[in-house]
Amino acid sequence: MLLTGFEPFGGDTVNPSLEVVQALDGEHVGGAAVVGLGLPCVYADAVAGLDRALEALSPVLVICLGQAAGAPGLRLERVAVNLSDTVQPDNAGAVLRDTPVVAGGPAAYFSTLPLTRMLEALRAHGHVAELSGSAGAYVCNHVFYTLQHRLVGRALPAGFIHLPLLPRQAAGRAGVPGMALESQVAAVRLAIEAAMPA
Amino acid sequence: MLLTGFEPFGGDTVNPSLEVVQALDGEHVGGAAVVGLGLPCVYADAVAGLDRALEALSPVLVICLGQAAGAPGLRLERVAVNLSDTVQPDNAGAVLRDTPVVAGGPAAYFSTLPLTRMLEALRAHGHVAELSGSAGAYVCNHVFYTLQHRLVGRALPAGFIHLPLLPRQAAGRAGVPGMALESQVAAVRLAIEAAMPA
Amino acid sequence: MLLTGFEPFGGDTVNPSLEVVQALDGEHVGGAAVVGLGLPCVYADAVAGLDRALEALSPVLVICLGQAAGAPGLRLERVAVNLSDTVQPDNAGAVLRDTPVVAGGPAAYFSTLPLTRMLEALRAHGHVAELSGSAGAYVCNHVFYTLQHRLVGRALPAGFIHLPLLPRQAAGRAGVPGMALESQVAAVRLAIEAAMPA
Amino acid sequence: MLLTGFEPFGGDTVNPSLEVVQALDGEHVGGAAVVGLGLPCVYADAVAGLDRALEALSPVLVICLGQAAGAPGLRLERVAVNLSDTVQPDNAGAVLRDTPVVAGGPAAYFSTLPLTRMLEALRAHGHVAELSGSAGAYVCNHVFYTLQHRLVGRALPAGFIHLPLLPRQAAGRAGVPGMALESQVAAVRLAIEAAMPA
Repeated sequence: MLLTGFEPFGGDTVNPSLEVVQALDGEHVGGAAVVGLGLPCVYADAVAGLDRALEALSPVLVICLGQAAGAPGLRLERVAVNLSDTVQPDNAGAVLRDTPVVAGGPAAYFSTLPLTRMLEALRAHGHVAELSGSAGAYVCNHVFYTLQHRLVGRALPAGFIHLPLLPRQAAGRAGVPGMALESQVAAVRLAIEAAMPA
Repeated sequence: MLLTGFEPFGGDTVNPSLEVVQALDGEHVGGAAVVGLGLPCVYADAVAGLDRALEALSPVLVICLGQAAGAPGLRLERVAVNLSDTVQPDNAGAVLRDTPVVAGGPAAYFSTLPLTRMLEALRAHGHVAELSGSAGAYVCNHVFYTLQHRLVGRALPAGFIHLPLLPRQAAGRAGVPGMALESQVAAVRLAIEAAMPA
Repeated sequence: MLLTGFEPFGGDTVNPSLEVVQALDGEHVGGAAVVGLGLPCVYADAVAGLDRALEALSPVLVICLGQAAGAPGLRLERVAVNLSDTVQPDNAGAVLRDTPVVAGGPAAYFSTLPLTRMLEALRAHGHVAELSGSAGAYVCNHVFYTLQHRLVGRALPAGFIHLPLLPRQAAGRAGVPGMALESQVAAVRLAIEAAMPA
Repeated sequence: MLLTGFEPFGGDTVNPSLEVVQALDGEHVGGAAVVGLGLPCVYADAVAGLDRALEALSPVLVICLGQAAGAPGLRLERVAVNLSDTVQPDNAGAVLRDTPVVAGGPAAYFSTLPLTRMLEALRAHGHVAELSGSAGAYVCNHVFYTLQHRLVGRALPAGFIHLPLLPRQAAGRAGVPGMALESQVAAVRLAIEAAMPA
C-alpha cells in the first residue's frame, strides 16, 4: 500500500506525517508492504510526486497523511474539494487563491476509505480520532483532491488523514495539543489495517 | 516524595492522575522514592487522606495530580484559591457553592514548586506543558489549597499539576485532546526531577 | 430575494436564523423585496418547503440561514456535500446516518454566492465573519445541498450562511459566543446587498 | 461610581473597555454618576492613575474594565493575584516576569463585587457572561490587584470585568468572537446596577 506524508512547512522543522511515513516504510501491515513516500509541501511538485508513485506502483490502498496544527487526534477526512485558497505560500512560494485544483473537475470527491470502520477501530484501541468535513484549502486538500480525481472509476480505496502536531512542535504553542510519535505510528498502522480491502 | 492522584469521577472509569501515581509508586526519581497515594474525589475525604499522608511521611517534595478534560498537555498550576464553587457534586454527592476551602484562610496561596524550571525541562524534552492561572474550584483546587495551607512556613516544595485525559477517555469526545499514559508518566517523572530540592 | 431560516431545534426555544428572517421579511434590500420563509428543522419537510418556495417565487437571489452554536460570527459556507450523517434526530425524530441528500447526486456543490465580496463587505463594516469549508451533515447542509442541486444550470446566485447563537441562548453555555439580534440582522442585510446581482 | 478602562495595546487601535467608559461617563446608573477614567496600558502609570482617582473621588463602587481577546462575553473576575508575568511589553516597553504586583502583599484578593448577583442579572437580560478564575498576569491583573490592595478594610465594593473584542477588532482574526459596542455598554450598565450597594 502507498502511504504518503509531507515535508515540514510554515516554519516547522519537522512534520509528523513524514515521521510516520518513515517509521512505517517497508513494514508489512494488514498483509501488504507499506511503501512510504515523502512529498514536498509544494502544490505542483506534490501532485507530480503522487502521480509518479501511482504510475510506478500498483498499490492495493492509498493513504495520504498531512499535519493539522490544533487537531486533538487523527482526523479522517471525508471530502476533498476542488478549491485551493490559502494566504500562506507553499514551500516554493506559490500562493493559490480561489483556484480549482483541477480546472473543470467536479466540486468534490468523497474519500473511498472505509472511514466508519477505521474510526471504530481507532477508538476501540483508545486513540483520539474523529471524522472531518473539511481538509482545508492548502496543499493537503490539493493532493487529496488530485488523488481522488486520478482514481475515479478504479476499485482502489484511497483517502486522507490529518495528524496532530508532535509534542515537541506543540510545546511552545499555548493550548495546542500534541500526540507522541509512537502513538501516531500505532494509530496509522491500525488505520491501515482497518482500511485494507479483504 | 509524595505523589497523589484522584480516583475517577464524573462518569469516567479511569483517571490519568491515578494511573500515573500507580505507575510511579515505588520508583526512585531524582534521588527520592515516590510514595504514591490515591485520593477519593470527595472534598472532605481527600483532605483527610492528604492530612494522614503528610503526618505519616516526611516527604522532601509533594506534588498532587488531577485530571483536566480539554487540557492539551500538563498544566502547572500557579495559584490555589480559597474557594470551592462547582455545580457538579463530588463522588459522595456533596455540592459546594461559594464556600471557602478553609474558613478564615487567605484568599490564595502560590505553588511553592519551581514552576519555571519544571516548564523548561518539560518543553526541552518535547512535552506539551503550560503554566496555568486557575486550578478551578472543585476537588482539585480544594486539595491544592489545603496542601499549601498545611505547609505554610515549612521549607517543603509543594504544588499541583493537572493532566490531560488519556486517549481512551478522549476518544469519544469531539475536539478533546488525549495524551498517552506512557507520555504522561514520562512527563511527570521529569517534572519531579526538575522540582526536587538540591 | 428569498431568505430562509429554521425553527428552533435541539432543546432551544429560539433560532437566530428564524429571528433574522422575520426581522427582514418584507424589507427592500439592495433593490429587491425580502421574502422570508421559516423552514421546519426536519430533513424531508424542510426540503419540501424550500421546493414550494422555489416554484412559487422567481427570486433573483436565495440565501438560506441556519444556526451554528459556537460560531463567533457569520460563517459563509463554501461547499454543500451530498451527505447527511448526524446522531441528533431532526425535530420529527428522523436520524440520518451516512445517507446521501440526493441519491446519485454529485459529491458536492459550491455556493454560487459571491462569498469573497460578501466577506469583505461584512468585515469593512466591523462584523465578525469567516468563510467555512463545512456546513456539517445535519438539516442545514441537507437544505443547502438541495438548494444547489435544484438550481444547477440556472443563473441564480444561491447559498448558505450560518449564524452564531443569540446572547440569550449563549448565556448559559460556558465559552460559547453570542451575537446580538440587531447585529445579526444588520450583517445579513449587508450580506444580501453584497450578494445582489447587478 | 468610578469606572476605568484601558487605552489600546498590542497593535490594536481601539480598546472596548475605553469605548465603554467613554460611553457611560457622566451617565447616572443605579443612582450614582459614572466617573469614567481611561488608564494607560502601562504597569506603573496605570497604578498611578488609579491611585489619583481613588484619592480625588469618594466613589461608592469601583469597577475596572479591560479587554480579553477570545472571551465570548463578559468575564467577571473572581481573583486578583500578586503576580505580573507576561512576555508582551506594556505600552511603555516594560516587561515584567515573575514579579509581585505589591512586594510583600498577600498572594491574592477576591473581588468584593457581588459577582453572583451581577452574573444572574446579565444572563437574565440575555448577555453572554461568565465567572472567571484568572485575570491573567498582565496590566489588567496588575491594576485589579492594586485596586483590591488599596481598598482592604474599606466597605467599598470593587472589582474587575474583562470585555470581549469589538466586532471590528475580531473581524480579521479567525475564530475570535466580537461583541457589539452597544451590547457591551448595555451589559456594563446592567452590571453596575446589579453591583450598586443599597
